[in-house]
Amino acid sequence: MNASERMFLPKGFQFSAITAGIKASGRPDLALIAAGPSTRAAAVFTKNLIVAAPLEVARTSLKTARGRVRAVVVNSGNANCATGPAGLRACKAVCAEMARLLKVKASEVFPSSTGIIGVPFPTEKVTSHLQPLLASVGSSIDDLRRFANAILTTDTCSKMASVPLVSGRACMTGVAKGSGMIHPQLATMLVYVMTDVAASAAELDKCLREACDESFNVMSVDGDTSTNDTVLLLASGESGVPLYDVRKEFRAALSHVCRSLAQQIVTDGEGVQHVIRLQIQEAKTRNEALQVARSISHSLLVKTAWAGADPNWGRILAAAGRSGVRLDPKKISVDIGDQTVCKGSVACEFDARRAHDQLSQSECSVRVRLGRGKAAIEFLTTDLTSDYVRINADYST
Amino acid sequence: MNASERMFLPKGFQFSAITAGIKASGRPDLALIAAGPSTRAAAVFTKNLIVAAPLEVARTSLKTARGRVRAVVVNSGNANCATGPAGLRACKAVCAEMARLLKVKASEVFPSSTGIIGVPFPTEKVTSHLQPLLASVGSSIDDLRRFANAILTTDTCSKMASVPLVSGRACMTGVAKGSGMIHPQLATMLVYVMTDVAASAAELDKCLREACDESFNVMSVDGDTSTNDTVLLLASGESGVPLYDVRKEFRAALSHVCRSLAQQIVTDGEGVQHVIRLQIQEAKTRNEALQVARSISHSLLVKTAWAGADPNWGRILAAAGRSGVRLDPKKISVDIGDQTVCKGSVACEFDARRAHDQLSQSECSVRVRLGRGKAAIEFLTTDLTSDYVRINADYST
Repeated sequence: MNASERMFLPKGFQFSAITAGIKASGRPDLALIAAGPSTRAAAVFTKNLIVAAPLEVARTSLKTARGRVRAVVVNSGNANCATGPAGLRACKAVCAEMARLLKVKASEVFPSSTGIIGVPFPTEKVTSHLQPLLASVGSSIDDLRRFANAILTTDTCSKMASVPLVSGRACMTGVAKGSGMIHPQLATMLVYVMTDVAASAAELDKCLREACDESFNVMSVDGDTSTNDTVLLLASGESGVPLYDVRKEFRAALSHVCRSLAQQIVTDGEGVQHVIRLQIQEAKTRNEALQVARSISHSLLVKTAWAGADPNWGRILAAAGRSGVRLDPKKISVDIGDQTVCKGSVACEFDARRAHDQLSQSECSVRVRLGRGKAAIEFLTTDLTSDYVRINADYST
Repeated sequence: MNASERMFLPKGFQFSAITAGIKASGRPDLALIAAGPSTRAAAVFTKNLIVAAPLEVARTSLKTARGRVRAVVVNSGNANCATGPAGLRACKAVCAEMARLLKVKASEVFPSSTGIIGVPFPTEKVTSHLQPLLASVGSSIDDLRRFANAILTTDTCSKMASVPLVSGRACMTGVAKGSGMIHPQLATMLVYVMTDVAASAAELDKCLREACDESFNVMSVDGDTSTNDTVLLLASGESGVPLYDVRKEFRAALSHVCRSLAQQIVTDGEGVQHVIRLQIQEAKTRNEALQVARSISHSLLVKTAWAGADPNWGRILAAAGRSGVRLDPKKISVDIGDQTVCKGSVACEFDARRAHDQLSQSECSVRVRLGRGKAAIEFLTTDLTSDYVRINADYST
């Protein structure tokens, strides 16, 4: 987040964070959002088939409670993934205990975990700290910051985005964590977006899926999908403004918040020096554009060229060529920064020094035109540096 | 190749190599296989839609000449890829000139190129050196070694494999180049397998596709498919042994040669410290096993864990989970070296130090059982080291 960006606090939410001792570092590792009684929610989860216990519990609970959520309990330091039936029991115990303290249903407590995979969940540590966690809730911006800070693992900074709605009568604020998978066995992108607009769970679900498609689903640091990825949208309704009246503004706000958080996550990706705005244009369909974008953004050769600010369009072309899309090489062109470097799959005259300089900036656009149609997407990705490898190869077990 | 491995020379082939000045280094960069009049051939090319000029020419020529090949002309230092119509004309000019010198048809000259993408092909340098190239042909093992050496780009060693057939009455010898894409803009795996068995082009084609499926198609250094990848099988027939009589032995020999060359290529992959024999077992189909193998072997997080000899099975599990195969997490188990580290997607007790030690060897096996069926494959892959990034990120343009 731009430090000077103004934060807005949606009515109907309180925040808290404490140290429960899950992280060896002693940093805050247990966090809470307490939501008002009219709150409705929608969530999007990882598409990975290996899913962590909290995702299984949250998915079922959302259905059981028909989208009602009164609390979000997040721990960092342990992903509660690949922990078997014991992990599921642990997660349910945490929800049950928080429900008891709040006098709500267990299905109205939404659980999230991020941290090490395959390590037994420290149930006792978490449940015994829920009361002090609840006791210290507050609704100031500082309380929100405490929450944003406690859900981090090895992110280098917290991630927030905020916009007013209806001339300040309502607002929307998002908090995220994630930076690829900095530490061995650590994973996960967690995103919580809160608003005080009033909406049904079904309305929220539709808006959230749209917003994810143009933010978190078009970004990539390392191409690995975590087992715990979760995006949760909560609407307390306490502004009195119904979504129905501000649909267009709401969608624009949600899109803005999600895109801003996505960009913050990519920029904080491990070892990232350069963020690349990869624009795939003239595709037949959006899916086709996405397929080409993924092939390029997952290519080790492309990503390492970007690390060296090398305008090596041959690698970009080769990665597009193996994407599975039936491209016609004669119609493909590639732009790096403001120059066309390859047209019809053949080299153009271009200023290599200028392309190098533009790729050396913290952000640069790379455009690939396929000459097949009118669909386009913008995909946010990164270079691959020795730092990424060093960070991820450190022996940890 | 094991230096002590005995080399066999199939009858009907001569070899040559010279420096034509394509490589700035002044190292040999133009090489020739001259083949006897009865030679038949089959080839397998890259599946990348961006293909280099020599591949387009070779594909057409093989068809026109019905699998007859009298010469293979290979240059290193320029891939003749993304060079447009001028590149095609250049390649055809090289084939025509060699055909004129040999008094054969242009379609009987098989061209290959490896090196920089997108740089105009130095036609004159190549055509003017074809006569001295031809003048220095020979059929000794040293001549074969000269050929094997001249096709290298930034490989650290030449790659050969050889087996006798029918108690020495015939034989088969393969030569390869490739080590991922060590140098920016350099790419390509080239493989030439020669035998003096007599066979039709159709028979060779069938055998070659089978052999590729269990060698070059189940290996990966960086997941990038080159624009110039070519595997060519040549049979001179000069041993007088027909393939029909030794079908089983021939297929075993071809499989052995291809697997040996594949292993040599992977071991010489850029920055590679550890080769991983990734065994995917209990899949429903071979394709399904391959899909899981590719997802795991292309995961940056898995590859960097291997670089650190970190027995981090959570990453392997997560990569399998996003492969697209409908896996049941409860049935998946993972072995590293000789220990089961995860069963039913839950951690097992295992000796982490022992797993680390085994992953620290130059080669280690990792086995993933899916619990879905009886299909299995062995996939040869590597770790991802800082050296890979350093090598590929060096600014070159």
